[in-house]
Amino acid sequence: MKVAVDAMGGDYAPEEVVLGAVEAAREYKCEIILVGDQDKIMHSLNEFENWQELGISVHHASQVIEMHEHPGAAVRKKKDASVVVATRLVKEGNCDVVISAGSTGAASAAALFGLGRIKGIERPAIATPIPNLTGTTVLLDSGANVDGKPKHLLQSAVMGSIYAEYILGMPNPRVGLLNIGEEETKGNEQVLSTYPLLKQSHTINFIGNVEGRDISKGTVDVVVCDGFVGNIVLKFGEGLASAIMQLVKDAIKSSGFLTKVASLMILPALRRLKKKLDYAEYGGAPLLGVDGGCIICHGSSKAKAIKNAIRVAKEFTETRVVDHIRENIAKEGIITNGNE
Amino acid sequence: MKVAVDAMGGDYAPEEVVLGAVEAAREYKCEIILVGDQDKIMHSLNEFENWQELGISVHHASQVIEMHEHPGAAVRKKKDASVVVATRLVKEGNCDVVISAGSTGAASAAALFGLGRIKGIERPAIATPIPNLTGTTVLLDSGANVDGKPKHLLQSAVMGSIYAEYILGMPNPRVGLLNIGEEETKGNEQVLSTYPLLKQSHTINFIGNVEGRDISKGTVDVVVCDGFVGNIVLKFGEGLASAIMQLVKDAIKSSGFLTKVASLMILPALRRLKKKLDYAEYGGAPLLGVDGGCIICHGSSKAKAIKNAIRVAKEFTETRVVDHIRENIAKEGIITNGNE
Repeated sequence: MKVAVDAMGGDYAPEEVVLGAVEAAREYKCEIILVGDQDKIMHSLNEFENWQELGISVHHASQVIEMHEHPGAAVRKKKDASVVVATRLVKEGNCDVVISAGSTGAASAAALFGLGRIKGIERPAIATPIPNLTGTTVLLDSGANVDGKPKHLLQSAVMGSIYAEYILGMPNPRVGLLNIGEEETKGNEQVLSTYPLLKQSHTINFIGNVEGRDISKGTVDVVVCDGFVGNIVLKFGEGLASAIMQLVKDAIKSSGFLTKVASLMILPALRRLKKKLDYAEYGGAPLLGVDGGCIICHGSSKAKAIKNAIRVAKEFTETRVVDHIRENIAKEGIITNGNE
Repeated sequence: MKVAVDAMGGDYAPEEVVLGAVEAAREYKCEIILVGDQDKIMHSLNEFENWQELGISVHHASQVIEMHEHPGAAVRKKKDASVVVATRLVKEGNCDVVISAGSTGAASAAALFGLGRIKGIERPAIATPIPNLTGTTVLLDSGANVDGKPKHLLQSAVMGSIYAEYILGMPNPRVGLLNIGEEETKGNEQVLSTYPLLKQSHTINFIGNVEGRDISKGTVDVVVCDGFVGNIVLKFGEGLASAIMQLVKDAIKSSGFLTKVASLMILPALRRLKKKLDYAEYGGAPLLGVDGGCIICHGSSKAKAIKNAIRVAKEFTETRVVDHIRENIAKEGIITNGNE
C-alpha cells in the first residue's frame, strides 16, 4: 500500500504531517510519499534518524493552495500545488490513496478533477465518523455538496453503508435519513422525495427517518443528509463537545477546597473521555464516490490525526471500498432506472 | 398578566403542569387559567391547600390533541381541544399568552389559525434559547417551517433580534446566518439569497455568516436558519449534551478506588453544569410572528419548565414583544419592497 500525503496541507504543516507520516510508517508498514516543498519537508524529516529505512520518500511540489482560495479555480490554476500533485500520483497509479489536511474544497476538487467519479455517482460525499454513546456513527454528506437531489442522497446512503461495513466493521449497518420527525410524511421537499428511494434500495438496511437526537445514541450506524445540514451538524457537535468539556473542567475547578485532589483523581478518566470525543482518533474522512482513494483530514490535524488517517487509507485500500461502491451503485442503478 | 395554560399537553400532564402553574402563581403573581379536563385538573389542584387564593382558575375543555395526530387537521376537527380552547382565550382577549407542552405542531397550528399572523409576517418561527459558554444563544427557526424562502429567514432574523433584546436583555444583539462557511459566497441557494437581505436590513445587527461551531462559543446572540436545519441542530445538541454528561459520569465512576470521594466532591458542580445545559431552565420557546403570545414547551416538561415558561410569558407580555415585531417588520417591509 502506497499513500501520497499532502505535506503542505493543514494548520501544522509540514512538521506535524511529517511526524504523523513517520509514526504511521513505523506502525503500519506502508510506503508513504510526502508531497510538497522539498526543502521544508526534508528539514522536518531530518529530525528522524532512520527515516530513509521506513519506506518514506519525498516528491517535490512547488505550490500550495491556501485556505482562502476558491477551490476549483485554485486546483485548475496551480498545477504544481501539493494536493494536486499528490492526487495525480494516485491517478497515475503510483499511489493508492491521497491524504490532505489542507482546504477541504481544494482536496475535493483535486480528487474530482484528477480521479473522476465512480460510474453512476453524480456527487461524491464526505463521510465523517462521529462518536456516539456506544461506538461510532457515520455522517454523510458532511460538506462536499449542498442542494443535493434525492438521488444524490441515495448514492450517499449506499456509499456510507459500504464505508461503515468495510472500514468500521459493522455488518449490515443501519442507515437512517436525518429528518425532523420519524414519520414518513415529515420533512422538507428534499428528504420527502429521498425517503421512497432509500426504502426501495436493495443494497442498504434502511431503518427510516432519524432525528438529531439519534445521532449520539448509537441506534443508527449511517446518517444520511445533505452536505449543508451535515456540515453544520458536524461543526456544531465539535463546538458543543468542546464547550461542555470546558464547562466540566470549570465545574470541577470551582467545586471547593478539595478540588485539587478530586481533579487529580478524575483527570485520567476525563482524558480518556476526551480521547473518545476527539476527531483525531478517527483519522480523517474519506471523499466517497471518486474513482480512487482520497482521505480528507481536519485542518487542525496534528501528527496523531495524520497517522490515523494513514491507517484509514490502508483499510480503505485493502478492503477495496471503491470496488464495492462501484458494484452496489450499479445495483441501485437497476432499481432507480426501472429494471432496465 | 393572565396566562392560559394547556393543562393536558406534555408527557407529565396534568400533574406537573398544575404543579408548575401553582409555583409560578406563587412566585410571579400572575393570573393563570388551567385549560383541560376539569376533573383531572381539580384532582391535581386539590393537592394544594390554598390554590384558590393564588389567582388560579380552571376552564374546562373536553378534548385533547394527541402527539400522533396531524396538527392542522386535529386543530380544525377538535374545537374543544385544550390547546385550541386555551388559544381562543388569548384570541378573545381573556388572556395574554397561551402555553402548551403538547404537540408543537398542534400548538403552532392553533396559534396560526386562532391568533393569525402579525401583518407582514408570512411564516411564524419558533425561537429556542440554547446555552453557550458565556450565556445564551437564540436559535430560530427551530422547527415551525421547512423550505422557507429568504424573506422568511429575514423575518426570523428581525423577530429573533427583538426576542433576544427584550426577553434575554441583550442590547443590540449580534445576528448571524447559519452557514457552512463565513464567506458571503458559501452555502446553499437558500442562504446565498438570504445573506443580502440580512445585510440590507436596518433593524438588525447582522454580523454575517456563522458556522455550527459558533453556536456554543457565545460570539453570536441570534442564529438564523431554516426550521429543518434548526430542528436537527437543536435535537442533536440535546442528545449530544446528554450523551457527554453520561460519559462524564461513567468516566468518574470508573476512575478508580477513590472514586466515591471524588464523585461526592464534584457532584454539586456537575449538577450546576447540568442545570446550565437544561432546557427546562429556559422555560419554553415562543412562536414568534403570530398576533399574540404563544409559548411552546418541550414535551417532557416537568413543573420547573412550566413555571419558567410562565415567567417567559410574563416577560413576553410586559415587554410588548408582539408590538416591537409589528413595528420592525413594517420597517423591513420598506426595505424589501423598494422604498414604496
